[in-house]
Amino acid sequence: MRDNYRTSLESVVHDLVEMTGLVQVAVRDATTALLEADLAVAEKTISADAELDRRHDDLEARCFSLMARQAPVAGELRTLVAALRMVADLARMGDLAAHVAKIARLRYPECAVPDGLRPNFTLMARVAEEMVETAGRSLLERNAHDAGRLADSDEEMDELRKSQFRVMLGTDWDYGVEAAVDVALLGRYYERIADHAVIMAARVIYVITGLLPEGENWPSA
Amino acid sequence: MRDNYRTSLESVVHDLVEMTGLVQVAVRDATTALLEADLAVAEKTISADAELDRRHDDLEARCFSLMARQAPVAGELRTLVAALRMVADLARMGDLAAHVAKIARLRYPECAVPDGLRPNFTLMARVAEEMVETAGRSLLERNAHDAGRLADSDEEMDELRKSQFRVMLGTDWDYGVEAAVDVALLGRYYERIADHAVIMAARVIYVITGLLPEGENWPSA
Repeated sequence: MRDNYRTSLESVVHDLVEMTGLVQVAVRDATTALLEADLAVAEKTISADAELDRRHDDLEARCFSLMARQAPVAGELRTLVAALRMVADLARMGDLAAHVAKIARLRYPECAVPDGLRPNFTLMARVAEEMVETAGRSLLERNAHDAGRLADSDEEMDELRKSQFRVMLGTDWDYGVEAAVDVALLGRYYERIADHAVIMAARVIYVITGLLPEGENWPSA
Repeated sequence: MRDNYRTSLESVVHDLVEMTGLVQVAVRDATTALLEADLAVAEKTISADAELDRRHDDLEARCFSLMARQAPVAGELRTLVAALRMVADLARMGDLAAHVAKIARLRYPECAVPDGLRPNFTLMARVAEEMVETAGRSLLERNAHDAGRLADSDEEMDELRKSQFRVMLGTDWDYGVEAAVDVALLGRYYERIADHAVIMAARVIYVITGLLPEGENWPSA
């Protein structure tokens, strides 16, 4: 019976890793939709969010049922509590990717990102996608060291966001108010995807070591 | 020993209600800081966020220890799982209130909200604060009916946000790019505070009925 239990728990972790892969695809697709003004990919990203929400509900129910079915030992309980939190973060990242795709769809056939900020968004999207990938891989490989590096990537993200503000609020900005509003929100969405990757990484470290990382680089929510 | 356990669990719920009260104060203070351009209140709101984070960490640890200490029966486990989720939502609402206060501080001694959007933000802030208050009260009183009403308030919030966009992107907007960026982000922060109040209300319903409410008005993350 305990073997059975361990198998169910491993299958939860397996599915969390798989869901992280889907979120990574969602972030990549959202970026393609945004930078290429690709309507079909935008629609695909928005539809994919429903599947991520379905997986969220399924995984949450399975964690809860595992908690209720048999008194979990300490390490198992830690994994289940962390899984509940990670699945919420993953669902949220999926929502944020869909938000990016919705702005791309709203501005189609124009591109929501002005030329002057294209390199910035290309980099920002790459950092966000890599952070999601690292969070998933560190969970798969139980690698606390890789998970720990995510707090540094998050600083890179913050710098990219600051540079967006400098461009938008500089005297050279001639793309108007609508583009500025889009950029402010798009930057926020990518920044939040990165934040959730960091929170997920903190939970990976918790599963492995039993301790949450501390310090101002590790947000709690 | 079970009596002892129930007392500890009730004290977790009590402290969640208390934390909701502090979040409500944070939202109110953030609004005062924003609409009155009050630097002292802005600083107070930003400092108060650290206390909310401390309470988050403390409550999360207590939930986890209660899960590990003794196999909880179904209703207790449900309350603990919901509490873990609610405390994360509350910490996040505190962060968002601090974000509002930081924009107020950044623009001081000017007011970040242009005159034309003052009535809109006054209403938006009132709705957000009331939603937080209702979420806390429905938890205190175990009132699933009041919790269920929050999905309607959230629609009011969405309408207020849409009307902000109409004003900003209309031809009459003469407050410039910086004000538009502030408004886009401030509107987003209040909208997210409302979303978290709705998610918290869904968890209150879950504690009482054992079921999560369904439908598109109930976000999962």
